Amino acid sequence: MNSQPKLNDESFMERALELARSAIGFVEPNPAVGSVITTADGKLIAEGFHAEFGGPHAEVVALQAAGTQAKGATIYVTLEPCSHLGKTPPCADALIVAGVSRVVVGTVDPAPHVAGTGITKLRNAGIQVDVGVCEAEAQDLIAPFRKLFTQSLPFVHAKWAMTLDGKIATHTGSSKWISNEKSRAIVHQLRGRMDAIVSGIGTVLADDPLLTARPAGRRVPLRVVLDSQARLPLDSNLVKTANESPVLLFVSDQASPTRVADLKNHGVEVIQIQRTLETGLLDVMSLLEELGLRQLTNVLLEAGSGVLGAFLDAQQVDEVHCFVAPKLIGGANALSPFGGCGLESMENAVKLRQHNVEILDGDLYIHGRV
Amino acid sequence: MNSQPKLNDESFMERALELARSAIGFVEPNPAVGSVITTADGKLIAEGFHAEFGGPHAEVVALQAAGTQAKGATIYVTLEPCSHLGKTPPCADALIVAGVSRVVVGTVDPAPHVAGTGITKLRNAGIQVDVGVCEAEAQDLIAPFRKLFTQSLPFVHAKWAMTLDGKIATHTGSSKWISNEKSRAIVHQLRGRMDAIVSGIGTVLADDPLLTARPAGRRVPLRVVLDSQARLPLDSNLVKTANESPVLLFVSDQASPTRVADLKNHGVEVIQIQRTLETGLLDVMSLLEELGLRQLTNVLLEAGSGVLGAFLDAQQVDEVHCFVAPKLIGGANALSPFGGCGLESMENAVKLRQHNVEILDGDLYIHGRV
Repeated sequence: MNSQPKLNDESFMERALELARSAIGFVEPNPAVGSVITTADGKLIAEGFHAEFGGPHAEVVALQAAGTQAKGATIYVTLEPCSHLGKTPPCADALIVAGVSRVVVGTVDPAPHVAGTGITKLRNAGIQVDVGVCEAEAQDLIAPFRKLFTQSLPFVHAKWAMTLDGKIATHTGSSKWISNEKSRAIVHQLRGRMDAIVSGIGTVLADDPLLTARPAGRRVPLRVVLDSQARLPLDSNLVKTANESPVLLFVSDQASPTRVADLKNHGVEVIQIQRTLETGLLDVMSLLEELGLRQLTNVLLEAGSGVLGAFLDAQQVDEVHCFVAPKLIGGANALSPFGGCGLESMENAVKLRQHNVEILDGDLYIHGRV
Repeated sequence: MNSQPKLNDESFMERALELARSAIGFVEPNPAVGSVITTADGKLIAEGFHAEFGGPHAEVVALQAAGTQAKGATIYVTLEPCSHLGKTPPCADALIVAGVSRVVVGTVDPAPHVAGTGITKLRNAGIQVDVGVCEAEAQDLIAPFRKLFTQSLPFVHAKWAMTLDGKIATHTGSSKWISNEKSRAIVHQLRGRMDAIVSGIGTVLADDPLLTARPAGRRVPLRVVLDSQARLPLDSNLVKTANESPVLLFVSDQASPTRVADLKNHGVEVIQIQRTLETGLLDVMSLLEELGLRQLTNVLLEAGSGVLGAFLDAQQVDEVHCFVAPKLIGGANALSPFGGCGLESMENAVKLRQHNVEILDGDLYIHGRV
């Protein structure tokens, strides 16, 4: 009898996490949150999740579905219920009013000044609160939200496709196509849940990409290019579509004012940021701070060796999406995915905390968190 | 009733292939061969395989196990029975004498002047012969034998471990350890079925490896180093163990005769070969021809970027064993596994015909044939 409630707790929280995940891409910059309401003896009453930014929170959706059955019930929620008035009334108050007996929380609110206040409010109202069920998964779920909220920086996903011998292009620059159609379809799905896609001018000049999700996804990502000298051609696919889907160019003091004016006239937003002293390249942190100010939660890096390397050197790669094609091209001068300075010792390599491997018609898709 | 025999044929041939595979590493430079004998209506009578070089052939082992039951039986054999007198009497004759009614063959003998003669002999004796059951697998099984027999060159396995960003070392050369213990145990298993392990002097100077299988495997591989200038140190692990387990050094005309004499005095075999005009590196084909003359069937490349690249450029990589560790190190100057000239166009990349992926405590092990 003792272990049964614990098992139930985990399986209901897993379900709440699943509900939350279903709305990733719709809710940002809010965190994804899911909730399940059960009777005190573990029978499912209702479910809910935060479905879109500005919409009701997960607990409120579940409470509405439960109606009067919420009285005396247990509610599972992946993130600590809020205690402050935001776009919606505080969820902690709603739970108290509804008369729930027990609240099971995945993880506390990541904001230092908020953490625990929702829980305290509930406990002060005489409600039993248990915190930390499926905590690791609950924290992983909100990692992008946590980074944006606590560091004012977006969560950076790095994506690359390489051959089995670690190249992203031949020594002549030929790169079409490394990965297969299934892999490329996954990339379009990724794009469709991002707030921005960041590329470098080298990649843009070589491939003239659209950097849009095709088919369109849940969000329309801002298309961002690091282009120190404002070399983006006016007849590029990006500029030609700038009025339909925004393009943001980061340039340095080296950019010609005339070119910048031309680009602006074509609907491109241009921001000048500083260059780093060591490399002369555009400063990654300045770029991310600007994107953070805009409340962009998830950013996808689709760029060449230089840009990926600069982000890794800045310790700003949070999640990786690596596609490996079963082919070899060789070449001492063929680029591998991450340039930059790199780490000195193999012992200090940046390790993935967890990773999944999928096989897509022969290609490998390896994704995980740093 | 019509499809049943066909299904049986395939499942008995699969079993014969399985038997054959169990002796890989024991039989070379012979091909691995397996055999199964059944009654005409598909009941198993006996099995056999070629267990070691110089020992009886698979068909003979199976016939001996079958005894008088072989009369009127069907025999499955992965490779065409031989018709010439070798170390053992011709198997085709043994099958005729035993009175089998039907012979099912995986694939014909790869030697142009032998191919089909065993089959013709059997048919002339009135035996039904069906050729090509599980033919692709039967051909894959003997690919190393076929290459050595038809081209007088060993079958080359390339092995490397790299990070998820395609590096075999950091920009400072640090490489211990990229892959985990399970991956490294697989490498020792690989070494234990090879006839030679080939490395480059760069790797040997950096790591001072033993290049032995630990624990020992079925074969004791010849340890081969490409060392144009005969720089192999006399106090290296290779030289110190040269009298227990042979070491062969390939040098160029740039090697100092004194150093060569010193190395020979320490038990190292030294052979001078030519350098390629384009790169000034030791010529891969000359090296492989020498190993082919010695009847070495399987050779494992465990080397750095330069040597692997040279073999790929020479189109002499036949099978790959790639270990990918879920970590990133970055660095524009960090080496990736294959140097050399490399291919120009991604479309012409060397593709793996088939490959398997295993996950070893988080590392990925990708292996397949080119």
